[in-house]
Amino acid sequence: MERAGIAGAGSIGASWALVFARAGWQVVLYDREPAVFARARSYIVAAIEDFAQFGACEDPELVLERIEFTNDLDLVANNADIVVETVFEDLSVKRQLFVELAGIVGPGTIVASSTSSFVASQMMDGLSCADRCMVAHPINPPHLIPLVEICAAPFTSATSIDRCRQIMTKVGQTPIVLRQELPGCVANRLQAAIWNEALNLVADGVVGVSDIDTAVTHGVGRRWAFTGPFESWHLNSYRSFREYLHIYKEMQEILIDSLSAKANLTDELMDRIGEERDGLLPTADIPSRKRWRDLQLMRLARQVDCDVDSEARLDQAE
Amino acid sequence: MERAGIAGAGSIGASWALVFARAGWQVVLYDREPAVFARARSYIVAAIEDFAQFGACEDPELVLERIEFTNDLDLVANNADIVVETVFEDLSVKRQLFVELAGIVGPGTIVASSTSSFVASQMMDGLSCADRCMVAHPINPPHLIPLVEICAAPFTSATSIDRCRQIMTKVGQTPIVLRQELPGCVANRLQAAIWNEALNLVADGVVGVSDIDTAVTHGVGRRWAFTGPFESWHLNSYRSFREYLHIYKEMQEILIDSLSAKANLTDELMDRIGEERDGLLPTADIPSRKRWRDLQLMRLARQVDCDVDSEARLDQAE
Repeated sequence: MERAGIAGAGSIGASWALVFARAGWQVVLYDREPAVFARARSYIVAAIEDFAQFGACEDPELVLERIEFTNDLDLVANNADIVVETVFEDLSVKRQLFVELAGIVGPGTIVASSTSSFVASQMMDGLSCADRCMVAHPINPPHLIPLVEICAAPFTSATSIDRCRQIMTKVGQTPIVLRQELPGCVANRLQAAIWNEALNLVADGVVGVSDIDTAVTHGVGRRWAFTGPFESWHLNSYRSFREYLHIYKEMQEILIDSLSAKANLTDELMDRIGEERDGLLPTADIPSRKRWRDLQLMRLARQVDCDVDSEARLDQAE
Repeated sequence: MERAGIAGAGSIGASWALVFARAGWQVVLYDREPAVFARARSYIVAAIEDFAQFGACEDPELVLERIEFTNDLDLVANNADIVVETVFEDLSVKRQLFVELAGIVGPGTIVASSTSSFVASQMMDGLSCADRCMVAHPINPPHLIPLVEICAAPFTSATSIDRCRQIMTKVGQTPIVLRQELPGCVANRLQAAIWNEALNLVADGVVGVSDIDTAVTHGVGRRWAFTGPFESWHLNSYRSFREYLHIYKEMQEILIDSLSAKANLTDELMDRIGEERDGLLPTADIPSRKRWRDLQLMRLARQVDCDVDSEARLDQAE
């Protein structure tokens, strides 16, 4: 039986537990504060019910049974193929946890941090298990969004990187491997690039906050669900993309040159954005909106995985 | 009967014709080169068939009948509520067309350009119909992606902007109105911001071209199909977004500060990206991949428009 230890039972830890348990793994979900387990458990139960509703979970009853909740760190390390850290975003808290884990993990265990705020070199340098340590950054919530960004330190072994990649693939995630350490990995940097341009457009009064969101959800974001930035660009072409890029690079250069400088996050701008968003989504409604998003993500995942053409024919037959 | 004239029968013009015809409008699709009509017609027929297959088109036979193909510009202007320009991306070609249109459109016709390369002030200044002229920039293909960015000149009347917004809403599109002229409007600038960061990451050797696309299609892009950049940020919060922004603005500032400078689009970089993408998608396969994307977009549009929770229950009942 394959085993995963998850250190930290916040929402990302609970979602990771579900990823592994859903794939048939035995999971130990650790937190030093047993008080958080009730919330983690209801998060997992609700997600399993949604999966079952969408026919995306073979054996809903078994999944929860595979997850053991504990405040004993030794159990997390015990025979684990991988330990995934998801504790508070504080370098010293994380470093201390990794020091403790180094003393108890077995010789074959991969040790992965879910953070993108710090790199492995900052958190795991000098540990006895350093060659098996790396960042494996998910997108929240990992049980609904498959990307995992593996970002290793110079001291991480190639074998360990490959092992982590294999584990993530095996449990249904989609790993990419960064060739160098980079805070924010790839996905958060792409997000920050959009935020920067969006913040400038709002600061300059070109459009309102909700217009930016509409431009993405009813515009470019729909394409990005299926074709990434490079493939979206490629699909504009009727010739080889190499030829196309040379012909249109000047137009792209003009647009890139016209991009905004780095945004100035003034208190006034934060207030304006906060107020507009709070008007659109009162704080009390955040959980139900998240649930709506999660259901949409679940459906989208099913859509991407199936053969859309044969599904269309099925729909027609109904 | 409401009437739209489309000037330019390339793929965007054909897609616009479908948007209006699908909504029950009478459409005149003009091109000075009647040779392009065969391709436009088969594009429209194929799209109508796909719509019908997805149950997204009430009367497929009638839609094509509503579209008249012509190389007589007078017919485009004749009694049109709106004329949409989609000719070649060349300022003098567009300017010449608008001069001709100004002489023949009725007093109530909105004149909209589909371009985001030029602003209305460059194309439509001094025309007798200037107060009714503006950019109405779609995302390709508009019959599958609803966003329309209305970007008017200082000489455009508020009534005309509002009329264009109403027309677009009426035919099922989702308009946003920019408060100032801006080349690239909003959506293309957000795209360019992502491209810039992606180009730098590839140029620096952090990841390959396909890793960037995976980071979007299997990661952040899935959220953007449902929640835009600001709402995605908001859903990280458990308190009011205004409070949240003040607490986390420092983290955001650090990430924004670490973003790459403007990318250097060297020939070597264009060759490298072109070669990797051409290996992934041979030029001959572009049309079938576009069709795959279009079918996915069609399904996604249906998913977003429906009540996902009740759909889930329906699926379960099947």
